[in-house]
Amino acid sequence: ESANEFQSQKDTLTLKLQDSESRNETLEAQLSDLERRLESSQHEREDFRKSLRSLLELLDSKIFELTELRDTLAKLLEGS
Amino acid sequence: ESANEFQSQKDTLTLKLQDSESRNETLEAQLSDLERRLESSQHEREDFRKSLRSLLELLDSKIFELTELRDTLAKLLEGS
Amino acid sequence: ESANEFQSQKDTLTLKLQDSESRNETLEAQLSDLERRLESSQHEREDFRKSLRSLLELLDSKIFELTELRDTLAKLLEGS
Amino acid sequence: ESANEFQSQKDTLTLKLQDSESRNETLEAQLSDLERRLESSQHEREDFRKSLRSLLELLDSKIFELTELRDTLAKLLEGS
Repeated sequence: ESANEFQSQKDTLTLKLQDSESRNETLEAQLSDLERRLESSQHEREDFRKSLRSLLELLDSKIFELTELRDTLAKLLEGS
Repeated sequence: ESANEFQSQKDTLTLKLQDSESRNETLEAQLSDLERRLESSQHEREDFRKSLRSLLELLDSKIFELTELRDTLAKLLEGS
Repeated sequence: ESANEFQSQKDTLTLKLQDSESRNETLEAQLSDLERRLESSQHEREDFRKSLRSLLELLDSKIFELTELRDTLAKLLEGS
Repeated sequence: ESANEFQSQKDTLTLKLQDSESRNETLEAQLSDLERRLESSQHEREDFRKSLRSLLELLDSKIFELTELRDTLAKLLEGS
């Protein structure tokens, strides 16, 4: 009886341990997936910001060129 | 002896189960943290995109106004 | 005879004077016309320059607004 | 007496003719000057309009480039 009881306790513990380890594996897979998604999201974000920085530089040069055009018009008006 | 052996096996299983459950808790905490960071990152990204969409609309209106100015200059040149 | 000669000289002078005065009138009319055209041309030119000065001010404000938009984009990129 | 009177009339006519011809020369000089000024003014105006047409073309290209920049921003926002 005592031996049966021990065996029953051991079986219960073994099942619980299997459940817990199975849950661990699931959680680790979810963590890995989430980490990959976060990393991928950060790469996309960095690429996006690089593209925006290029756009900002392009906008700067367009504003500079419009200002040159404006100065040419102002000189034409002064000189005429 | 057999009883001691059973007890020893039970203790080993109990320790392994405690370790595994402790690891589970750590992983669940990490998952929660990562999910919060991903959600927060998505909110920031959505806010950023909203701001950029506002900028795009503003840029549209500036291009429209420069085009009106260009048309006024063209009409002045035709009419003069 | 001498009287006839005098009369002939007087007639010649009178005709020359009439021609000269007629030419004067024509020249004065041409001058008046040219002065009117020059004045009209200067008014048109002044109106044209006024319109261009308005365009220059409008261009200034558009460049200013594009620069504000550029600064907003730069701040978004710094803050994100 | 009659001869004196004739001579006096001839002198008067001669003086009037000299005045009129002198006036003619003055008017012709004024006309030439005005024509030169009008022609010079038209050349300046044509040069001015040519410069403005160049500015208009430059403005067109700047508006085109801003529109390309705007389209790039719109695509970034759609794709992100």
